[in-house]
Amino acid sequence: MSTLGIVKRNIERAPAEAVARLQAFGVATVHEAMGRAGLAQPVLAPIYEGARACGPAVTVLLQPGDNWMLHVAAEMLQPGDVAVLGTSSDNTDGMFGDLLATSFRARGAVGLVIDAGCRDTAELRDMGFPVWSRAVNSKGTVKATVGSVNTPIICAGALVHPGDVVVADDDGVVIVPKLHAAKVAAAAAARETKEAGTRKRLASGELGVDVYGMREALAKAGLRYFDDEAALARENQK
Amino acid sequence: MSTLGIVKRNIERAPAEAVARLQAFGVATVHEAMGRAGLAQPVLAPIYEGARACGPAVTVLLQPGDNWMLHVAAEMLQPGDVAVLGTSSDNTDGMFGDLLATSFRARGAVGLVIDAGCRDTAELRDMGFPVWSRAVNSKGTVKATVGSVNTPIICAGALVHPGDVVVADDDGVVIVPKLHAAKVAAAAAARETKEAGTRKRLASGELGVDVYGMREALAKAGLRYFDDEAALARENQK
Amino acid sequence: MSTLGIVKRNIERAPAEAVARLQAFGVATVHEAMGRAGLAQPVLAPIYEGARACGPAVTVLLQPGDNWMLHVAAEMLQPGDVAVLGTSSDNTDGMFGDLLATSFRARGAVGLVIDAGCRDTAELRDMGFPVWSRAVNSKGTVKATVGSVNTPIICAGALVHPGDVVVADDDGVVIVPKLHAAKVAAAAAARETKEAGTRKRLASGELGVDVYGMREALAKAGLRYFDDEAALARENQK
Amino acid sequence: MSTLGIVKRNIERAPAEAVARLQAFGVATVHEAMGRAGLAQPVLAPIYEGARACGPAVTVLLQPGDNWMLHVAAEMLQPGDVAVLGTSSDNTDGMFGDLLATSFRARGAVGLVIDAGCRDTAELRDMGFPVWSRAVNSKGTVKATVGSVNTPIICAGALVHPGDVVVADDDGVVIVPKLHAAKVAAAAAARETKEAGTRKRLASGELGVDVYGMREALAKAGLRYFDDEAALARENQK
Amino acid sequence: MSTLGIVKRNIERAPAEAVARLQAFGVATVHEAMGRAGLAQPVLAPIYEGARACGPAVTVLLQPGDNWMLHVAAEMLQPGDVAVLGTSSDNTDGMFGDLLATSFRARGAVGLVIDAGCRDTAELRDMGFPVWSRAVNSKGTVKATVGSVNTPIICAGALVHPGDVVVADDDGVVIVPKLHAAKVAAAAAARETKEAGTRKRLASGELGVDVYGMREALAKAGLRYFDDEAALARENQK
Amino acid sequence: MSTLGIVKRNIERAPAEAVARLQAFGVATVHEAMGRAGLAQPVLAPIYEGARACGPAVTVLLQPGDNWMLHVAAEMLQPGDVAVLGTSSDNTDGMFGDLLATSFRARGAVGLVIDAGCRDTAELRDMGFPVWSRAVNSKGTVKATVGSVNTPIICAGALVHPGDVVVADDDGVVIVPKLHAAKVAAAAAARETKEAGTRKRLASGELGVDVYGMREALAKAGLRYFDDEAALARENQK
Repeated sequence: MSTLGIVKRNIERAPAEAVARLQAFGVATVHEAMGRAGLAQPVLAPIYEGARACGPAVTVLLQPGDNWMLHVAAEMLQPGDVAVLGTSSDNTDGMFGDLLATSFRARGAVGLVIDAGCRDTAELRDMGFPVWSRAVNSKGTVKATVGSVNTPIICAGALVHPGDVVVADDDGVVIVPKLHAAKVAAAAAARETKEAGTRKRLASGELGVDVYGMREALAKAGLRYFDDEAALARENQK
Repeated sequence: MSTLGIVKRNIERAPAEAVARLQAFGVATVHEAMGRAGLAQPVLAPIYEGARACGPAVTVLLQPGDNWMLHVAAEMLQPGDVAVLGTSSDNTDGMFGDLLATSFRARGAVGLVIDAGCRDTAELRDMGFPVWSRAVNSKGTVKATVGSVNTPIICAGALVHPGDVVVADDDGVVIVPKLHAAKVAAAAAARETKEAGTRKRLASGELGVDVYGMREALAKAGLRYFDDEAALARENQK
Repeated sequence: MSTLGIVKRNIERAPAEAVARLQAFGVATVHEAMGRAGLAQPVLAPIYEGARACGPAVTVLLQPGDNWMLHVAAEMLQPGDVAVLGTSSDNTDGMFGDLLATSFRARGAVGLVIDAGCRDTAELRDMGFPVWSRAVNSKGTVKATVGSVNTPIICAGALVHPGDVVVADDDGVVIVPKLHAAKVAAAAAARETKEAGTRKRLASGELGVDVYGMREALAKAGLRYFDDEAALARENQK
Repeated sequence: MSTLGIVKRNIERAPAEAVARLQAFGVATVHEAMGRAGLAQPVLAPIYEGARACGPAVTVLLQPGDNWMLHVAAEMLQPGDVAVLGTSSDNTDGMFGDLLATSFRARGAVGLVIDAGCRDTAELRDMGFPVWSRAVNSKGTVKATVGSVNTPIICAGALVHPGDVVVADDDGVVIVPKLHAAKVAAAAAARETKEAGTRKRLASGELGVDVYGMREALAKAGLRYFDDEAALARENQK
Repeated sequence: MSTLGIVKRNIERAPAEAVARLQAFGVATVHEAMGRAGLAQPVLAPIYEGARACGPAVTVLLQPGDNWMLHVAAEMLQPGDVAVLGTSSDNTDGMFGDLLATSFRARGAVGLVIDAGCRDTAELRDMGFPVWSRAVNSKGTVKATVGSVNTPIICAGALVHPGDVVVADDDGVVIVPKLHAAKVAAAAAARETKEAGTRKRLASGELGVDVYGMREALAKAGLRYFDDEAALARENQK
Repeated sequence: MSTLGIVKRNIERAPAEAVARLQAFGVATVHEAMGRAGLAQPVLAPIYEGARACGPAVTVLLQPGDNWMLHVAAEMLQPGDVAVLGTSSDNTDGMFGDLLATSFRARGAVGLVIDAGCRDTAELRDMGFPVWSRAVNSKGTVKATVGSVNTPIICAGALVHPGDVVVADDDGVVIVPKLHAAKVAAAAAARETKEAGTRKRLASGELGVDVYGMREALAKAGLRYFDDEAALARENQK
């Protein structure tokens, strides 16, 4: 019954074509294209500006203060993968640094999302290995207790199944279920096309309330315009 | 009696000349020049290094998870304004992104202070549109419930009336009441002049305790100097 | 009995040679070399990327909202020192800015670790004066109540004695007791040498589980590998 | 221009009759009756279960770590008043204990709302003197710097003018502007009457969606009912 | 693809017998019996001491600041159910009070776990309707945007499927997957039996290191005993 | 050099007479009597109202998520001791429950201060075994890595040496260095005597500003009294 002590060697990854298409989009766009779902909480931040990653998730479940499973996970990584790490309780210890990044990169991984701490950030920046973490923290960890690799995990409030697509950039991290990856990519593309038109109109000075036709709904929802403070005061005295 | 559902079209803005003078000063200087008042809590951070804005406030009050009023606010913005947003309860959803920034800029706004989340931060950085926010967050919002525009709001613990001057930089955000804007600008200038002299003396190696003449007050307040650990130990044994 | 109102003029600093050797190492390495000790909590962050400092600590104990002792501390600073500040209760007011930095630099100090707030961050960045702080905050402070200089303090959960070595970089802050400074430098060097070899092996694609010889211990700790989801399901049904 | 160093001896208090009527209502009811406004953030909690207070506010503005103004405020308290305290920056020091409570009670005050810490909680519970605070904290404070009494303050995100009505119970703290106190009391009474009828219907098993007539609006907003998982799966495959 | 706007009328609940057996155990015991899984984060607290609930989950997904779906959920509640609420982003508004509790009780529900705020806590305590919430908060909510009922949700970091068993007491909240409910109940019973024997031995003064036979493992893990400070000092000098 | 893996069997405890005298005083009084020092941060709370403990500290240093050392510590406890626990990094796992409490009580311990989580709180309340913890949390822990017993630790920001006196009540936790225990007890007694006289005067309606003779100092610090709003407005216009 336990969810600990398990490594799944082979997982079904989201279709490569869908992953490739998702790489074109930012986190906010993908999240909206999913019907406003899939977002990790905004406690995860990239360790450097302009970080970006997109790939299938290899999931890792760890105990607080123990990064043993990251070494186990390395063996399961394939080129293009993004490792995603959850812990069995809140922990910000520095579980990942430049040695593990060297190993992950040698395996072909393109990034890490870690609901814990990260260290050696200057070296990781120099390597160009992108990490999204809850904290920058040098605290060392032990290697004493097993967790799991490639079981479903919760990372910063987001449910992640192995093989789901991770999209991460300056704005955070979003998880796309592998089954929906193609549909989400299509919806994201449609959204971008539509937004391009809107952007042009807004840039020309048109107002959103007109572009989106909001005036009637605003009035119905009770919005009232007053010319100035005096007009509002008169209304309040009625 | 409600403070929701209200838009004031015309507000009295701080005198343009006072706003122009305040643009020369940093947040810390302005805050000190106000007698150590007006500061927003340090939960607001600029989305990029070197961000800077100064202008009259157009205030926006929003519901958590609902950014509808930002579109309503766009119509009220005039060239040089800074939009300032408070929410009716704590919320970090991503209420502002590059489309709204495009619209705000088209209206002449020079920045946004938002006691909530911001997204599309890479695009905003590229545009050079400065935002101070409580979080970077891609979480999408709805457009279902009205708030208000140009009523007094509380933003990160600071009271903001429409037309007050917002000064924001790497050090945070300070709000200058429009009535006092000219006086504050004058006091800030005086402070800078005085600090320039102090800086020169400190740079030359003079000590603050001498420059500011603190030694007597320190002694009166009970400060005692000991040559070393042994001297302190002797004193403690008395 | 009180720990307030005390200034010790002369302190024993860690040996200069040990300080010089420690300058070559990052925070994570030093922390590991100490047996995973000495780390300040990850609430302290550098005010600019790439900040780095290493030197003997001059300690300062302050009251919340009162930065008077920083001026007293300036007189005790010697070339190469790092000022380290703790407060008698949680406080993030902006206790340090460019004027104090000017004074500290004139005294030869090479950095500040402050368990409180810092302001004038743009100016400090331009000066290249590194500060690690709990917050960026413009809030001004008073000069009314005495604290202490060069007594033992707790800074972000780390115990600091005057003269201990402070090592700080992008990854945080670690405190090395002056008595152990030489031993820690030696252990850090040994660790780096060993890691260089490991890095090479990992970069070539060898796995950590093999490099570190973990497979037996993992099995003993209960780790089980399954070929795929189906294999795991079969096991769970047993 | 400074907001510090000011004591106003005489303030206009909300009408006694309105205060008396508001005493009958809970915080949630009063907040709703104000159009969902006036609430302090839920960081304030009563120091004992069942605490309750209602009365005009005497406001106090303090520096972090300094409770001097509470003694100044005592002189301004009149029978039935509630003291409300804000600080110039975040602070949870133990600014109030049983001695001050003894003094406040002798002046006729009926409670304290403090955006900081409180101590001697067992004694206060025994006295039956209700306090809403941000923390229980024994940390002692100094008496060195002046703040203000009876100027507008912000307490836990709520704007409080002297003389406004404070209503506080197990659910938190709400501030009623003195000008609106009578109207709010009337609206609260109307709300309670209406809720009594609703409660009866809900208790009998009627559903809120019917009592409030929500079904049509829910459908319009896009809510869809599915008999079971299978029905939902069929829909998703379309 | 969206996870919003969905209500599932019929769900498979955990077997009644397993639920009945789980009612006998505390949260800590159940969590251990699951192999240390299923726990909600300790941000949820009961609104009164001694609160306790155990029953199948009816899940509710809400938007921040909007409690509309709680009325929709009422219709789906059956006798013995526990409602469990997650939000699409962090929110502590007061989404639940005595009116909804009246409705939920009329439907037979035995408790609520809400990853948001709760109000009318005195009335709920008087009713004996147990609620575990992230905050006590009077903040009112709107009814404008749909969420979902009886879809999988994440509540305080725990994954909850409709029909899973919720066990909640003074120690927090744990979720038992419906498929494993019977096995977990059996494991919990076994654990309690074993602990009863251990408790007796410990109460008699036997040491845990002996009862559990830890001495050898401790020595192997590197634990060393020293008679006193002097012995330790001698060792450190070697 | 490492601080882990060490158990000191024999420690010097504060004099029994001093401990006995300190039992008469509350945390706030003891903290003031120490010159406002020694306080743990207000993140520690008793698990039940009215909890109280006073005794020499047996210190325990643990890894996050690992409570092994608590069993080792049990053997070092003597009648009257209070166990005090720090962790090597932030952790709120449920490290202590009713089994360990049974063992601790059998050894004569009178309480626990734990900078981590506690579970089985209902049972502990029934036993009357007082615990001050950072969280109530059922999360189970492992027994895999050694920490230390009876070495100096930092617990919630307070430095604790083995044998120091722990005083804990509803207001928090304070640590009295064993060397100063007698002096602190004397100072606490003196403080209580003095406060008794002050309390009487305040209860009779005398004002603190008169009892403490503050009026002159307040004026000197810049406090100005205004009869009313109009008087203040006139002053501001000058």
